[in-house]
Amino acid sequence: MAPEILVSEVGPRDGLQSIKSILPTPAKKAWIAAEAAAGVREIEVGSFVPAKVLPQLADTAEIVAFAKTIPGLTVAVLVPNLRGAEAAIAAGADKLTLPLSVSETHSLANLRRTHAQVIEEARAIAALIAEQPEDRRPHFEGSLSTVFGCTLEGAIPLPQILGLAEQLMAAGCDEVGLSDTTGYADPRAVKDMVRAVRGAVGDEALTGIHLHNTRGLGLANVLAALEMGLDTVDSSLGGIGGCPFAPGASGNIVTEDLVFMLQAMGLKTGIDLAKLLEVRKIVAEALPDEPLYGFTPDAGLPLGFVPESHAPSMESAA
Amino acid sequence: MAPEILVSEVGPRDGLQSIKSILPTPAKKAWIAAEAAAGVREIEVGSFVPAKVLPQLADTAEIVAFAKTIPGLTVAVLVPNLRGAEAAIAAGADKLTLPLSVSETHSLANLRRTHAQVIEEARAIAALIAEQPEDRRPHFEGSLSTVFGCTLEGAIPLPQILGLAEQLMAAGCDEVGLSDTTGYADPRAVKDMVRAVRGAVGDEALTGIHLHNTRGLGLANVLAALEMGLDTVDSSLGGIGGCPFAPGASGNIVTEDLVFMLQAMGLKTGIDLAKLLEVRKIVAEALPDEPLYGFTPDAGLPLGFVPESHAPSMESAA
Repeated sequence: MAPEILVSEVGPRDGLQSIKSILPTPAKKAWIAAEAAAGVREIEVGSFVPAKVLPQLADTAEIVAFAKTIPGLTVAVLVPNLRGAEAAIAAGADKLTLPLSVSETHSLANLRRTHAQVIEEARAIAALIAEQPEDRRPHFEGSLSTVFGCTLEGAIPLPQILGLAEQLMAAGCDEVGLSDTTGYADPRAVKDMVRAVRGAVGDEALTGIHLHNTRGLGLANVLAALEMGLDTVDSSLGGIGGCPFAPGASGNIVTEDLVFMLQAMGLKTGIDLAKLLEVRKIVAEALPDEPLYGFTPDAGLPLGFVPESHAPSMESAA
Repeated sequence: MAPEILVSEVGPRDGLQSIKSILPTPAKKAWIAAEAAAGVREIEVGSFVPAKVLPQLADTAEIVAFAKTIPGLTVAVLVPNLRGAEAAIAAGADKLTLPLSVSETHSLANLRRTHAQVIEEARAIAALIAEQPEDRRPHFEGSLSTVFGCTLEGAIPLPQILGLAEQLMAAGCDEVGLSDTTGYADPRAVKDMVRAVRGAVGDEALTGIHLHNTRGLGLANVLAALEMGLDTVDSSLGGIGGCPFAPGASGNIVTEDLVFMLQAMGLKTGIDLAKLLEVRKIVAEALPDEPLYGFTPDAGLPLGFVPESHAPSMESAA
């Protein structure tokens, strides 16, 4: 198990795109700044999709520019295609994630693209990145979504998944990620999938996972992923969000509960848990109609719980 | 990891003792019968405490007698002392659990007894059991509660815990159990505690664990316990209940989510998950004012999920 875990906050993208309310730009900035101040080192701040598709994320370029002023923060964004990648690079994002749904039915419903078309976008994005000055090349991840099963197709054949992982790497991605879009994963499936995909693309090309808590197994699945050596876990403050194209599949892992688990286990996150819990207030006040989830915020911390000190080693790693 | 897991339903005891509503005796019987018919092989059906302390469980003797008519069901009860054990044995219970809070402060608040007094009760109960005809001797478990920390004392020193485990076994318990009364456990603590207690009393003397979901880590902690080889896990239908003496510590693991996780992982439970989900209706109708929890009941089963067949090998093990 890696001793230091990167908690990658996806609430400002995955959370906000799934709700009807639009979080005003100043509140987004306050959220991102507060969460970074609490020690979160990577935040997916938005998605470069047309504003008419996701008006909640129409201010992504402005949000990226703001987030880039926060020292040590990795500013991640989702890009559905080359056009989104162009905008992301122009805005100065540090990390681009291109989703590829291993279920082609879901891919067509979600991105309106076949697998071959998504791989072609990946190739074009990688070429665009290669054209950038060396110090301005963002990290590029291809995210294998619906990898633990799809609400439209059910289980996806493993050879198809491994083939797509290999094609993403061949197209020029720096790494692939696993995404349990539908909340179908279980701990054994997580271990089997990590082993299989690493077998196909190499250990260094798979370090992160995006899990949902749809059936209550979110943190058990995280534990399985950590035991396989992954060191990057996505989660959403207050558990908001999910995938709007996978019915009943809402429910990201709650960042607060995740960080509590990691710190209770003695793993380093670089996060000040008390400060993180305070960030909820910003989101709750700005989104009064949206429920926030999480057990740890309700229960409080155990008596005698020793929070992780803001370890200096994490600062330099950021 | 053991290939077959015993899910021990504690809702009719731990769940019902924590709520104000009193479930009528016929509804309790219907619940127990339906859950046994769904394949649950062990149910903690009540507690032999004075009716004025827990009026919700005043019908425990009648419930035990009813549950004993169900073939293959292990009828478990909680007993706080020798007097409770006498009543439990007279009623014909198959398994007695005596809680011993490793926090003496909590023990005094909960059972109004020092550690020495509880150990003395254990000795007297073991002697009483030994006096019974061989085919009528119930299994006797000493349950180490607040073992992962106490809301009054915080962490309990490990030597104190191990000493109490040894004393329970020396007093005549057949086994000890671990109980996360306060919801303080984390996966690493579970593994460390199982290893330490098994080191003190032997692997055969620790097979079961009672975990809460207070901070959302319930199923992650189950996974850790399974990975250490434990094969018996307590849970509560609809997640009702908790410990009334540990403020903020409500929240048993939800049986439905636990069974989904186990079956998704390919482990055998002998339980028909679709039938189990139907049992919620009985409890929901009889307790209209009590919330029922659970993610799997809301989300439904994954498309293509192959439920465990009711394996014949589980019948013979019951």
